[in-house]
Amino acid sequence: MGKRIVIIGGVAAGPKAACRVKRLLPDAKVTVVDQDSLISYGGCGIPYYVAGDVSDESELRSTSFHMVRNESFFEKAKGVETLTSTRAVSIDRANKTVLVENLQSGERCSLEYDTLMLATGSQPVKLPIPGNDADNVFTISDLHKAIAIKEMLAKGKVGKAVVVGGGAIGIEMAEAFSDLWGVETSLVEFQDQLLPMIVDAPMARIFEKNLRDNNVDVLLGEGAEEIIVKDGKAVAVRTGTRTLETDIVIMATGIRARSELAVEAGLAVGGTGGIIVNERMQTSDPDIYAAGDCVEITNLVSGRKFIAPFGSMANKEGRVAGDNMAGIPSSFKGGVGSFIIKAFDVSLGAVGLSLAAALAAGYDADITLSSPADRAHFYPGQQVICLGLVFDRKSRRVLGLQGTGPVNDGLSARIDAAAVAISAGATIDDFGNIEMAYSPPFSPAIDPINAAAYIADNICGGRMHQIDVVEFCQWMENRDTHPDWVVVDVRHQSEAEPFIEQFGADFWITLPYDQVRERFAELPQDKKCVIFCNAGSRSFETQVFLESVGVTETMVLPGGFNIIRRMGGDWIPAS
Amino acid sequence: MGKRIVIIGGVAAGPKAACRVKRLLPDAKVTVVDQDSLISYGGCGIPYYVAGDVSDESELRSTSFHMVRNESFFEKAKGVETLTSTRAVSIDRANKTVLVENLQSGERCSLEYDTLMLATGSQPVKLPIPGNDADNVFTISDLHKAIAIKEMLAKGKVGKAVVVGGGAIGIEMAEAFSDLWGVETSLVEFQDQLLPMIVDAPMARIFEKNLRDNNVDVLLGEGAEEIIVKDGKAVAVRTGTRTLETDIVIMATGIRARSELAVEAGLAVGGTGGIIVNERMQTSDPDIYAAGDCVEITNLVSGRKFIAPFGSMANKEGRVAGDNMAGIPSSFKGGVGSFIIKAFDVSLGAVGLSLAAALAAGYDADITLSSPADRAHFYPGQQVICLGLVFDRKSRRVLGLQGTGPVNDGLSARIDAAAVAISAGATIDDFGNIEMAYSPPFSPAIDPINAAAYIADNICGGRMHQIDVVEFCQWMENRDTHPDWVVVDVRHQSEAEPFIEQFGADFWITLPYDQVRERFAELPQDKKCVIFCNAGSRSFETQVFLESVGVTETMVLPGGFNIIRRMGGDWIPAS
Repeated sequence: MGKRIVIIGGVAAGPKAACRVKRLLPDAKVTVVDQDSLISYGGCGIPYYVAGDVSDESELRSTSFHMVRNESFFEKAKGVETLTSTRAVSIDRANKTVLVENLQSGERCSLEYDTLMLATGSQPVKLPIPGNDADNVFTISDLHKAIAIKEMLAKGKVGKAVVVGGGAIGIEMAEAFSDLWGVETSLVEFQDQLLPMIVDAPMARIFEKNLRDNNVDVLLGEGAEEIIVKDGKAVAVRTGTRTLETDIVIMATGIRARSELAVEAGLAVGGTGGIIVNERMQTSDPDIYAAGDCVEITNLVSGRKFIAPFGSMANKEGRVAGDNMAGIPSSFKGGVGSFIIKAFDVSLGAVGLSLAAALAAGYDADITLSSPADRAHFYPGQQVICLGLVFDRKSRRVLGLQGTGPVNDGLSARIDAAAVAISAGATIDDFGNIEMAYSPPFSPAIDPINAAAYIADNICGGRMHQIDVVEFCQWMENRDTHPDWVVVDVRHQSEAEPFIEQFGADFWITLPYDQVRERFAELPQDKKCVIFCNAGSRSFETQVFLESVGVTETMVLPGGFNIIRRMGGDWIPAS
Repeated sequence: MGKRIVIIGGVAAGPKAACRVKRLLPDAKVTVVDQDSLISYGGCGIPYYVAGDVSDESELRSTSFHMVRNESFFEKAKGVETLTSTRAVSIDRANKTVLVENLQSGERCSLEYDTLMLATGSQPVKLPIPGNDADNVFTISDLHKAIAIKEMLAKGKVGKAVVVGGGAIGIEMAEAFSDLWGVETSLVEFQDQLLPMIVDAPMARIFEKNLRDNNVDVLLGEGAEEIIVKDGKAVAVRTGTRTLETDIVIMATGIRARSELAVEAGLAVGGTGGIIVNERMQTSDPDIYAAGDCVEITNLVSGRKFIAPFGSMANKEGRVAGDNMAGIPSSFKGGVGSFIIKAFDVSLGAVGLSLAAALAAGYDADITLSSPADRAHFYPGQQVICLGLVFDRKSRRVLGLQGTGPVNDGLSARIDAAAVAISAGATIDDFGNIEMAYSPPFSPAIDPINAAAYIADNICGGRMHQIDVVEFCQWMENRDTHPDWVVVDVRHQSEAEPFIEQFGADFWITLPYDQVRERFAELPQDKKCVIFCNAGSRSFETQVFLESVGVTETMVLPGGFNIIRRMGGDWIPAS
């Protein structure tokens, strides 16, 4: 008989490893154990199932050729045994057995293994607040929960919803409720921005405005402190400042690795709570592998460990585990946190470190902001893409890229290319030469990713001096506190008009870009100038020229009005 | 006075370098010389101008903020002097002067330089055939030609068109004529496929079928031998096999670097005809730089030199030249030939080497073909993307990626990520772990680029044995020549039906994927089996299983019916 391989966990990494190792060792006996009755599903698709984009839950656990991945499928098509509704109770490493319990019959038995793999996944963290166990308080942890939520929606039981947590799942669920079902939805986030540590404030605010514009009530800096329950049902969520009536509560307040079984078996677990594995996905016991949400992996930028709860990573890790379990050396070095999300008509992506994360990790970091066209600006349908490139001033290494854009694959293209470059330790000079495929229907001649690197180069070279856009917005809202500054708008006169009308010609000074060289002497001598245009490039060129003629107290507003406008703000004149 | 910098050529690399160096050295005197009256335009946009996507030629030479880049713009906004309609006659390197002639007045004068830059671009190669100088025979070389072509179209003078050359420009012009203007268009290519050496036959055929489906008459393996002229006008093109009546002829038969001035000045020019430059974009004379279509650059995969006639590359090279001319060390190491094009509803992209190019360069190369969904297969609107990954069996290095897909940025995303990885010398193992940003609306959990690498790994590991799809199609058209083989269709029975009806159940054997393990003994013992499915993955799994039970004479049809169907062929049953 061939090798006996037991895999605990049947969602993503587990089935991937099981099928891979079975192909590599056709005479192996491969057994997958899962406590759930439904296995091998695309968990990341749950919000789209709830929203109705995916009509039936079985689609989330079907192949692209429309076969449902159930026990029979794994047996017949893959030659892999699956024990569903079966919980792994404990691991006996000395005797190389796993004690499992059938959750329906209560029967227990012992599975012998030559090689064991843990793919136990993650579980949502429920806020430890009163009422968190009410019937209609859900986490997005498995298909059963998703089915129950959709049933409530379909039966018209949800008029109002509160989503707790402004991360990816919270945002996607808020969209799902609000978009198709027209549910009055509030999104509550304890921190002062959406997607903290994934993107920095400007991108987060762009996305926040997008949600608000689509009727999601975004409440930042407010923790959910209590769920008010009546007759076993949550009826409201109380934050520090208000009480939100609701028919359903979604808790999307993060996940933690499911590593209890590993801990009990004496396997090494890291500070993140994830199982420690080497590049071969081997745990501290060489006969036990682990992959997916339950392990911690290395951030290839910072070197720190993190949990990467993505089906995409689980599949990669699972395949590497499968290879190594079959004796084929294969390695997984870590990740850079490639991330993309959509809500309504805006997408947001990120890879590597945000500025906040980079500063926290001790880098001498800064960020560019830019807002170029996503394809040739003369090509019909071109749209603005907003990018932020995070870099280290000293080493010139690129640490991260983040952005927002329309919902097409244009933002993905930049995030993906950056992911490869950042993984390889690319500098801003390398980024300047990244060879994005060029043709007017797909990209501008100077791709946004190259342009962002050029800006970083100008900042590092001391040629560009910028103001933080959040600070700029604060100044605009409290202009009296900074009487010594003015805005110099280098756009066309007509674009500046509404601003002049609102703020006066002494404060909002118009000096079109192509008149700077002849008219710069008109600028006030005793004021600091924030140079303002649509995308930032004219402002930079103006700054360089002004510097050359001795006007040195200037700051570029990076990314220009394209970014500010998308962030929104009461001070912005209606257009 | 500051440094005197003269730049010959005012389209892409020249203006980019001029503006960059002027920003770095504000007191420099920067002069751009161009023989044309129109400068700084997006030449790659010409087909879209002709097609009508871009309504006015001035948009191709405008900034994203709608200023026309003319002499006045460069002077006022950039502080750069431009001498248009001025030809550079010769370079006196000893005295560091350029003799220029005003083409309107005939006046000549000498420009002194401290640093000179050549950005003389490329020029189209006109086939040396009779009639090639008739009035209505055009190359796509500058805006004046584009304006003249569009004028003919707008005046209704073009009912039929012949485009000679099946490269990017030929294809884009054929689309322009056929799509908006409804011109009866023939595309003549001397070689036996479109885009030779850029992509291999399967992708070329997919694109060819796309053109044919949209009423472009694609004629392959036919050289244009004569242009028949009446009253100074081309009226027909004669190929080896036929005569095509026409109202206009577009010659898109390649370009060559414009390096005459460099040659005459004694600068080193390479075997490609392009000016030789180092990583600083310096020619063999350290005071003379060169960039853009007129230089040869290093292919970062093969190490060979090539001309990269893209506005995107010209901008990158121009910026590096600008930096170095200003004394800031900056380098451009070469390119990987990132390429993307659209015609009608299909896009085609490539980077690195095609299989043909890789074999010609001496690699032990092979290619994968795959046809996965471009996003989660359960997400609405997902479409098939066809990819070919070229790799070296020995070193496992990825040499190239090519593909076709819908006209969105999904194909770009994969080509761009591959471009970065290939530039960095990535292996198929690295490709397997490329971290594409994952979310169902943007990508599947196993990204097409990862999946392609997995296939390459299986081929290298001797686990997958494939048949060339072109060979398969030839076999299907001449089945009698191979009596010892059958097709094993592992798709759903219903999908196989039309094929069984057409080819008989003895030749087109149906054995659904999930029944292979129980029914494999039914397969004929004495025949070779080509295993057939929609995307190739079920075929591969079937092959692995059959191999394990001793059925070794099998071949996977890589990419499956998704690819075959898009390539087209008379043998395919109507669906």
